[in-house]
Amino acid sequence: MSDPLPVPEAFHTRLRVRYEETDAAGVVYYANYLVYFEVARVEALRAVGMPITEVERRGITFPAVSADCRYHSPARVDDLLDVALWTEHVGRASFGFRYEVRRCAEHGTPGDLVATGRTRHAVVDRDTLRPVRIEGWIADLVARAQEWRASVPGAGR
Amino acid sequence: MSDPLPVPEAFHTRLRVRYEETDAAGVVYYANYLVYFEVARVEALRAVGMPITEVERRGITFPAVSADCRYHSPARVDDLLDVALWTEHVGRASFGFRYEVRRCAEHGTPGDLVATGRTRHAVVDRDTLRPVRIEGWIADLVARAQEWRASVPGAGR
Amino acid sequence: MSDPLPVPEAFHTRLRVRYEETDAAGVVYYANYLVYFEVARVEALRAVGMPITEVERRGITFPAVSADCRYHSPARVDDLLDVALWTEHVGRASFGFRYEVRRCAEHGTPGDLVATGRTRHAVVDRDTLRPVRIEGWIADLVARAQEWRASVPGAGR
Amino acid sequence: MSDPLPVPEAFHTRLRVRYEETDAAGVVYYANYLVYFEVARVEALRAVGMPITEVERRGITFPAVSADCRYHSPARVDDLLDVALWTEHVGRASFGFRYEVRRCAEHGTPGDLVATGRTRHAVVDRDTLRPVRIEGWIADLVARAQEWRASVPGAGR
Repeated sequence: MSDPLPVPEAFHTRLRVRYEETDAAGVVYYANYLVYFEVARVEALRAVGMPITEVERRGITFPAVSADCRYHSPARVDDLLDVALWTEHVGRASFGFRYEVRRCAEHGTPGDLVATGRTRHAVVDRDTLRPVRIEGWIADLVARAQEWRASVPGAGR
Repeated sequence: MSDPLPVPEAFHTRLRVRYEETDAAGVVYYANYLVYFEVARVEALRAVGMPITEVERRGITFPAVSADCRYHSPARVDDLLDVALWTEHVGRASFGFRYEVRRCAEHGTPGDLVATGRTRHAVVDRDTLRPVRIEGWIADLVARAQEWRASVPGAGR
Repeated sequence: MSDPLPVPEAFHTRLRVRYEETDAAGVVYYANYLVYFEVARVEALRAVGMPITEVERRGITFPAVSADCRYHSPARVDDLLDVALWTEHVGRASFGFRYEVRRCAEHGTPGDLVATGRTRHAVVDRDTLRPVRIEGWIADLVARAQEWRASVPGAGR
Repeated sequence: MSDPLPVPEAFHTRLRVRYEETDAAGVVYYANYLVYFEVARVEALRAVGMPITEVERRGITFPAVSADCRYHSPARVDDLLDVALWTEHVGRASFGFRYEVRRCAEHGTPGDLVATGRTRHAVVDRDTLRPVRIEGWIADLVARAQEWRASVPGAGR
């Protein structure tokens, strides 16, 4: 992993734990944090003017190259979670994000740490699967991150 | 099915289609509409002051007795969906909801019909699995439905 | 629903309940029976010489038109389930299956009824979404159903 | 991570990619490899005489502490996958597994590498969440690994 870029502010998304996401141990099933990371990625892209449907229209796709997660404390059904996302890495045809999931009070600020993780993605042409040089919009993900401090978590969701 | 109760207004919840919810046919996987129905149920209960965690604290659970779904037009990744819920039936120890899922414009009103369905649930003690007489709060689900017209879709989500 | 066709024998598939498929109530999440139905469908198609990948190569897809499920007794993690499938309906460009999910002893025969359901599917061209006349292979689903009595449940799975 | 233990043989499980596990990009959704790892874990435990239901009866649970995955080539619907599992680490109240997912020919041996990963688990009392000293059966996971070479992949699944 390269050094984190100087991104002072995270992009925040909020979501509710669904029954479907829990398991018989009474907590969120461990694979579902990768789903939460996906939600955060998609919302972060939307926030910089690049909804995922626009990515698709351009014939680009972002297959995961790697993912990891550390589980700090279990989340439970109906927990309100804050997922913070940082751009960790931007390469010629790849990028990486870092995530922090925290439990929130109903109208409050993020609290207990639930999980942390990272994902790396290639940027490829959907048909040829060849690498695609990252364009301005993803550089924007980094540059405009400062504006994320004003983001309205969960807006439209 | 008994006749629908006189509930003039639906409770509305909004959600975004996640990648995880689509399949290789490019559309929302058919089982996931039952997940969307769950989201709507949980939000409707919250709206009448009965968050699902409070239901659990009372030792009550709502196992599904039956569910059905009709698929009208496919939803796709990142679609914004409106799930309308109506209380269709309230028995001594059971209740039923009806759902309509519609595609929404980004800041607009519900549009194309995507799916419709119904679920029936028993109200049982979590430990004994014996039927539990429905209390006032679920009657509230019906009586207060009129107030749902003012509901803020997706609030807190 | 049309009358069931005279299909005396069901096609049987076996599967194990995964943690991921359960929820915090300790039982299989209600939407996942539709996943089990899918597994049974795909295995039944394979058994008549029509693996789903061959269906795709022909540019055909089977979107669900409707699905329903009744929940008789909850399945739990690691339960071995038998999913019986019957062809219930074959139309010009549609078909329907019926399913019965039963709990099995480790090496035994299907036991307690867990869930029952039905799904209806259109047969459409993947690109145009126009109805596609059902060909011989799906008629085979009916005609060769008798041979299913000899099917080896879970083979290759 | 500690050095891998001297476990010469992997435990193998086979499974079929379900539609439900794919996404609109046409491939297995990235979080689902963690589900496949779970399937392999549960089958490996069964193979050493410790079905997960027996673990539960003893009041023990194995929460994930960390998980990671690298994606080498995408798996698609109906692919037959071989999941190889190695015991990578056994501590006083924790253990770790390593996984390799490969695409298989219908009746053949594992081929192309699809994904690799690792998971770490704590061993805790289900009620108190206190660490539980690992007993003989998990040591067996290591010691008896040699017998896994004779395992029948996918048996009973």
